[in-house]
Amino acid sequence: MKTTHIGLLGLGTVGKGVVEALSHQNTVVIDKVLVRDVTHHHSNLPLTTDIHEILDNPDIDIVVEVMGGIDPAYEYLATALQKGKSVVTANKEVVARFGPKLMAMAREHRQGFLFEASVGGGMPILDALTWHLNATPIHAVEGVVNGTTNFILDQMEQGMDYQAALQRAQALGFAEQDPSADVDGWDSARKLSILAGLAFHSWIDAENGYVKGITEVRAAHLHRLKEMGFGVRLVARAERHPSSIGFVVAPTVYPLGHRYLKLAGSQNAIGIFSDAGTTWIEGPGAGGLATATSIVSDIQRIRFSVPDRDPIQFESLPVENINDAYLIFAEDPERPLPVIAEALKSGPGYLILPYELPHEEGFVQYRYRAK
Amino acid sequence: MKTTHIGLLGLGTVGKGVVEALSHQNTVVIDKVLVRDVTHHHSNLPLTTDIHEILDNPDIDIVVEVMGGIDPAYEYLATALQKGKSVVTANKEVVARFGPKLMAMAREHRQGFLFEASVGGGMPILDALTWHLNATPIHAVEGVVNGTTNFILDQMEQGMDYQAALQRAQALGFAEQDPSADVDGWDSARKLSILAGLAFHSWIDAENGYVKGITEVRAAHLHRLKEMGFGVRLVARAERHPSSIGFVVAPTVYPLGHRYLKLAGSQNAIGIFSDAGTTWIEGPGAGGLATATSIVSDIQRIRFSVPDRDPIQFESLPVENINDAYLIFAEDPERPLPVIAEALKSGPGYLILPYELPHEEGFVQYRYRAK
Repeated sequence: MKTTHIGLLGLGTVGKGVVEALSHQNTVVIDKVLVRDVTHHHSNLPLTTDIHEILDNPDIDIVVEVMGGIDPAYEYLATALQKGKSVVTANKEVVARFGPKLMAMAREHRQGFLFEASVGGGMPILDALTWHLNATPIHAVEGVVNGTTNFILDQMEQGMDYQAALQRAQALGFAEQDPSADVDGWDSARKLSILAGLAFHSWIDAENGYVKGITEVRAAHLHRLKEMGFGVRLVARAERHPSSIGFVVAPTVYPLGHRYLKLAGSQNAIGIFSDAGTTWIEGPGAGGLATATSIVSDIQRIRFSVPDRDPIQFESLPVENINDAYLIFAEDPERPLPVIAEALKSGPGYLILPYELPHEEGFVQYRYRAK
Repeated sequence: MKTTHIGLLGLGTVGKGVVEALSHQNTVVIDKVLVRDVTHHHSNLPLTTDIHEILDNPDIDIVVEVMGGIDPAYEYLATALQKGKSVVTANKEVVARFGPKLMAMAREHRQGFLFEASVGGGMPILDALTWHLNATPIHAVEGVVNGTTNFILDQMEQGMDYQAALQRAQALGFAEQDPSADVDGWDSARKLSILAGLAFHSWIDAENGYVKGITEVRAAHLHRLKEMGFGVRLVARAERHPSSIGFVVAPTVYPLGHRYLKLAGSQNAIGIFSDAGTTWIEGPGAGGLATATSIVSDIQRIRFSVPDRDPIQFESLPVENINDAYLIFAEDPERPLPVIAEALKSGPGYLILPYELPHEEGFVQYRYRAK
């Protein structure tokens, strides 16, 4: 078996996981690792701060990118493909924004471009969605794809206010110092773009969807919902409508016992709904070694398969203003909320707390989708 | 894109699902369908009763087998590979018994041999296990992989005795007229052989494992367990031990609320436990269209990938007599069963009802694994 040579961009938590996971593979070698500052790393690895030592090295077959961010990652990956290297990336920002463009480049240059780690870090979701679940038309894809918000919502449910819960998450390393991508819903929205793109063959710009984070969720509401037998999770959902795509990321209410409320730690859950039935995949959504398994899997798939797979023909479907599909009502929190309970009990109720509306004194406002 | 020509062996529920699913694919054509009796089918399809019209037809690229049974299916598939055709099969008997042999033949003749539909009919489990989940060492694979026994156990829990529950399952089409493979545990055991073989790279002969079906489960026990807050499912589990494989299929007790007890209809659930975390896949375990999606997915993977993937080197590990790892005790069913409750509450309790022992008057016998 021919040895495959890797150029690794980034050596954070995931990068170190990739190094560890590849240490078990004796026909895959890391030739060079791009870091920002060589003196920050105590490592026997062949470090460099010069991207050209990777992009211009004809020995390197696959560029593995775990730096994150659009700039300069996108340029590096586009250049790698143009120079005839395959690319494996964990970068959801780049894939959500430039996925079809990079796929087209990869086909043009007959290279592999895989990004399993970009959604549900350690879960086998994207390849399954591309090949298996897509064999019959998909109606909807939905999931809890952000572990940080799970942790914060759990803490708040136990009475902590939002700021205190966020600080606790940061202190324990579950949230970034700049948590905005997680708590504002954009991390989930980018992942949903990728899921919806592969499910519906129409790549969604999340900016056109309804994206609402958890920053306006109130601990008192969560506490009260819990007493009533409900819990809240930040849920991302895309639906195939006749000539559009419904796209929503929002805090959503579920009855206790629902799988979303049982997810522990960084576990994520993603459901795919099609004529053939419903498939759920639950697994580690983050973590160095877990995310690295997705990357190693992509590397092996590229090593053992022809890159010019059947080109997915992307359609350009409009994003539906899914807001219109929801009914808003307000209710006195001091009184029972039979409407919520009924909506949830009478089937696959889908209920959203719309915190963008002003909170009137003594009232919580809710919206739910008209059936 | 070159048209791919299919020879289909079998036109039962799954075969018809394959025909339907392939009708959406305009570069895949079914050239010939092998049936037992042409007059039994009202169909525009090119039917034949002569296997040579498929095996000797040089135009046919991929043989898709959905007949079931070892004989003559195994011979047909081996011959197809030797004649330079790729093979896709849903046949768990053939794969459990001859998997590594057929994989070796496929490599020798540089053809694809895929069998996603053989375990968890419509679930994306085997490819994920082969490529993704295997990127870090797997400790255990476990699941509810037989929907028929779920249905029977559910009926019995509501008070029906075993025979009546089985007859109801047969009347509704959930159980075969000869239900032995399902209720005796061998359907689950064959699927576990395949899962364990791909997870541990050691192919297990299920005959060497501990395989116990549900035929001796008593409705009274189920009813009593339910009152105590527990339910029973037929669970298949294989574990990687230092120099052996633990292999068990047995009725197992879980606290209510466990995912296994929530599986509806033909839904299956399979968990993979590794250093990278735990991944669960839940989806349709049977059904014509669901199983057909696995087959179409395999066809597409063969069309777009090189068949000579890295040969899995199978080790030959002994199967542990997992019976030894279980402690048996008997208890008066009229009194509470605190030991069961404690065992289940104190962690990943794993509890088996061993119905092979005589049921002493007034006693139920249990075994659970020593921690």
